[in-house]
Amino acid sequence: MRTSIATVSLSGSLTEKLTAASRAGFDGVEIFENDLLASPLTPEEIRARCADLGLSIDLYQPMRDIEAVPADEFNRNLRRARHKFELMRRLGADTVLVCSSVHPLAVDDDALAAYHLRQLADLAQEFGIRVAYEALAWGRHVSTYDHAWRIVEAADHPALGTCLDSFHILSRGSDPKGIESIPGEKIFFLQLADAPLLAMDVLQWSRHYRCFPGQGGFDVAGLVRHVLRTGYDGPLSLEVFNDVFRQAEAGPTAVDALRSLLVLQETLGVTTPPAPVVPTGVAFAELVTPDAEPVSAVLGALGLARTARHRSKPVDLWQQGEARILVNTSGAARRDGTGLAAIGLESPDPTGAARRAEALLAPVLPRRRAPEDAPLDAVAAPDGTELFFCATRRDELPNWRADFTDVEHAAGTPGVQGIDHLALSQPWHHFDEATLFHRSVLGLHAQESVDVADPYGLMRSRAVTNADGSVRIALSVGAAPTDDTVHAQHIALATDDVVAAARRFRDAGGRLLPIPANYYDDLAARYAFADGELETYRELGILYDRDAHGEFRHCYTVTVGRVFFELVQRDGYRGYGAQNAPVRLAAQHAGRPVQ
Amino acid sequence: MRTSIATVSLSGSLTEKLTAASRAGFDGVEIFENDLLASPLTPEEIRARCADLGLSIDLYQPMRDIEAVPADEFNRNLRRARHKFELMRRLGADTVLVCSSVHPLAVDDDALAAYHLRQLADLAQEFGIRVAYEALAWGRHVSTYDHAWRIVEAADHPALGTCLDSFHILSRGSDPKGIESIPGEKIFFLQLADAPLLAMDVLQWSRHYRCFPGQGGFDVAGLVRHVLRTGYDGPLSLEVFNDVFRQAEAGPTAVDALRSLLVLQETLGVTTPPAPVVPTGVAFAELVTPDAEPVSAVLGALGLARTARHRSKPVDLWQQGEARILVNTSGAARRDGTGLAAIGLESPDPTGAARRAEALLAPVLPRRRAPEDAPLDAVAAPDGTELFFCATRRDELPNWRADFTDVEHAAGTPGVQGIDHLALSQPWHHFDEATLFHRSVLGLHAQESVDVADPYGLMRSRAVTNADGSVRIALSVGAAPTDDTVHAQHIALATDDVVAAARRFRDAGGRLLPIPANYYDDLAARYAFADGELETYRELGILYDRDAHGEFRHCYTVTVGRVFFELVQRDGYRGYGAQNAPVRLAAQHAGRPVQ
Repeated sequence: MRTSIATVSLSGSLTEKLTAASRAGFDGVEIFENDLLASPLTPEEIRARCADLGLSIDLYQPMRDIEAVPADEFNRNLRRARHKFELMRRLGADTVLVCSSVHPLAVDDDALAAYHLRQLADLAQEFGIRVAYEALAWGRHVSTYDHAWRIVEAADHPALGTCLDSFHILSRGSDPKGIESIPGEKIFFLQLADAPLLAMDVLQWSRHYRCFPGQGGFDVAGLVRHVLRTGYDGPLSLEVFNDVFRQAEAGPTAVDALRSLLVLQETLGVTTPPAPVVPTGVAFAELVTPDAEPVSAVLGALGLARTARHRSKPVDLWQQGEARILVNTSGAARRDGTGLAAIGLESPDPTGAARRAEALLAPVLPRRRAPEDAPLDAVAAPDGTELFFCATRRDELPNWRADFTDVEHAAGTPGVQGIDHLALSQPWHHFDEATLFHRSVLGLHAQESVDVADPYGLMRSRAVTNADGSVRIALSVGAAPTDDTVHAQHIALATDDVVAAARRFRDAGGRLLPIPANYYDDLAARYAFADGELETYRELGILYDRDAHGEFRHCYTVTVGRVFFELVQRDGYRGYGAQNAPVRLAAQHAGRPVQ
Repeated sequence: MRTSIATVSLSGSLTEKLTAASRAGFDGVEIFENDLLASPLTPEEIRARCADLGLSIDLYQPMRDIEAVPADEFNRNLRRARHKFELMRRLGADTVLVCSSVHPLAVDDDALAAYHLRQLADLAQEFGIRVAYEALAWGRHVSTYDHAWRIVEAADHPALGTCLDSFHILSRGSDPKGIESIPGEKIFFLQLADAPLLAMDVLQWSRHYRCFPGQGGFDVAGLVRHVLRTGYDGPLSLEVFNDVFRQAEAGPTAVDALRSLLVLQETLGVTTPPAPVVPTGVAFAELVTPDAEPVSAVLGALGLARTARHRSKPVDLWQQGEARILVNTSGAARRDGTGLAAIGLESPDPTGAARRAEALLAPVLPRRRAPEDAPLDAVAAPDGTELFFCATRRDELPNWRADFTDVEHAAGTPGVQGIDHLALSQPWHHFDEATLFHRSVLGLHAQESVDVADPYGLMRSRAVTNADGSVRIALSVGAAPTDDTVHAQHIALATDDVVAAARRFRDAGGRLLPIPANYYDDLAARYAFADGELETYRELGILYDRDAHGEFRHCYTVTVGRVFFELVQRDGYRGYGAQNAPVRLAAQHAGRPVQ
């Protein structure tokens, strides 16, 4: 199906919006009137710009407060409409959106509304324009799609149809099944938006919190299914008002927007992109650093051993059990200090995984970083993290491990079994995008988002996982764009005895994050522990939590650059210790050098 | 009355919170449990720190899910309570807050709740501790203050009383009059918070949107009046959960918080600070600039003349009619370019105005900037703008004008009559604070806040004015802390013929902000203008709006440094052209050099 996006969904000038929509790959746009008013381009120039960019102008919007008003008001409206139809002719737009009236003088009279809309449609027809009438969820007298359709039906004019908007329909709790009784050719337009399920004033909800399909809680696909059964063959168009997107760069937002429509079409069975290939484990995590020494010291103390070195690049492989961490000191290493740059995901079908990612607009990275390297499929996540699709133990497939030459090494200390989870801090403006990316591109499941109190603001965190928990990624975002989210990036290593692992780490010279004594007094108040257990936790800085599935014990190293490590003993527990995160965050702030 | 603040209302570590509360002048604090858990200080050290800072610990909070639960659960709760009472003894806190249960196993049984609370109070009594039971607005079975009080009354224990919280009471729409039937000595604590009137889930509303009394829409003073009639003599304590305050610096937030309690006590008639002295006009606006030339050129083209120079400092007075603008190039001039640094407000009683400002915690500036200057009363607003209380035309009072020596000057061009309004961009974290400051300190009236769409985010704007509109200040704030709000700072000059004023400005070499042609096509669609009128507006870049009171015509100069000027013809109109602001903002963005 054709894809379209309302210019109001993207930030910037009209030119910037159109460019972003075109680059992402949209077929068309809805021109939001205020974007046109504020543009220095004439309508003819906008038309030419759209043509150059390969964008059709699918809708001009909105025209407000037209119908069911006193006669003199309506006459002024017709005069206004004539101006707008002339403008649309210059623009080359042939469909206009009319929202149900919120005018204080509008009356509750469907016959009058139909009469007015018929007159408007008569005028529109002279200009070759179609009028799409939409029920605003907060319309004064018309607020449901079926009511709007009854008025359109009564007006009975070829240039008059209805516009359906998933937000207005689903936010009211209307049953979208009734859409099927509308003839498809009378559905002139379909606007799509999702939204988180919030109990709030619907106007505020609509203006500030809409999001792209799949990012919120609405069954947008279910609604579209009903629309398609009518024979509707217009575009799928996104109209999303969102305070965050207004500030975000238009380019990434447009890509995210189009991705949401691609996933929606897949859900509907309209298209069949390559199927998701869910990763089955974490092959490695790659740290970049200007100086390998500090992070190597921590890895060594954690019990990992330096087992191999890349054949041609300054990259070391540190390993213990299934935990593999690459330490990369190449020139490309980030200048902002030690950071988590790449993740290797075990994939049943690395090429298929990359093909799906590419089909869903993820930037594909060159298959070989150097000519002699094994050809690895890789894409970039929205936060810039490189995702490599790996087949570590299958000889028939290219293996990243083949690029590494074993080195003689002292055995590491057993205790660490693998990577429990990875925590990635996300760019503030692209948190919802990151979740949709990991869900749709990687086929991971997104857990509920949780708020975590940092001493300097609320953090949000949301985990994406595969079914058996062998891949867990915690995505987090600070309270504000200015927020320092360094504390959110870490590698959690799984152990079946966190006390022993923490003790060994400390004995090997590692520094654990000190946890306040008050925390342990509170644990003592909340739980009964075996003799000496709490004293051990207190001594080592081990935190404790439990859920319905089991217990959780974990501790943290101090931070190296932008990364720290966690030791995690997960005895059935399914969470990430969010209960303890405020204490951890405060301890990390306390431990930072005063600016 | 004693003033107190919950540590959760302020950002930072516990130490930072306590320091901020003490410096602002609070008498005591409520210690929020999570702040204690995350602190490296022992309870004894916290106690000593509070004593050093002159703060009492008025409350330890909260204890949750205590009552009306199954017996084994309650026994665990008593065990937990004993730990907490021991902690409170170390802390020197003698009152604990118990919130009504949200436990999934809690039963709707007031007798059981009373029985449990009595047992808890028995235990508390052993430690010399009082239990204050509070109804959470979302409590599972107890969610109103009168219900909580009935249970406390039934439990009938000297160590058990109730805690009243204005948010929980007013957010539920409960009638606070019933408070008067509670004996004052059984009201163990009073927590105050205001909130904007939002239709949203009460838990989310409470956790993210509370604000200080006078910043929201609740009648907090009315509620406190009922409480005082009971004989309550405990502290007025602020408990405010707010996403913005969590990120803001604790120091200014604490000052703002205490100011809200001072104003509240004045409203209640408990205290009588110096009465507000409402300003009666704008004496001058002062620009600081590293280079007087560009801004002087604009002022000259606007028709102002350089009429006087400061006796001892590089400050020029530019004047036309009642519009007076100081251009200050002294070393103290801001290094970040030309900006609006000070406002002179005509005051019927400059000293009284300053005394009130000081009583409400505004930083008082030295009365003389130099020994030979006239002694001027001045304070700093939260955004750093200096406010001078002036008596320009009253010989009996010190006059700022006396510091200036007239210079020979070419007559300016008539047309500008005075300063219509001043627009000040506010620090993102302190917008609500700014409004409360201007209302309470200056006695100005705050209009409704409006959202304005900037191409890169939503701006908020709120005007404060005196009764006759001779003082109008528009406070605005960008979409996010990172936002570039340079476009928000400007001086609007009143004229009774904006067309003539704009033409003269342009003819004198001034550069007006170009407005897109599309804007005028839209004006033509919306209004009928006299022949040629619209063409004139289009030619000059004049914008148009109207409201129920009259018409508004205005235009803008290009920006100099961080400031621009507006020419305003206000024929009865009461607003600020918010309708046109998105077009203006887009034009300003378009005119900025590409980074």
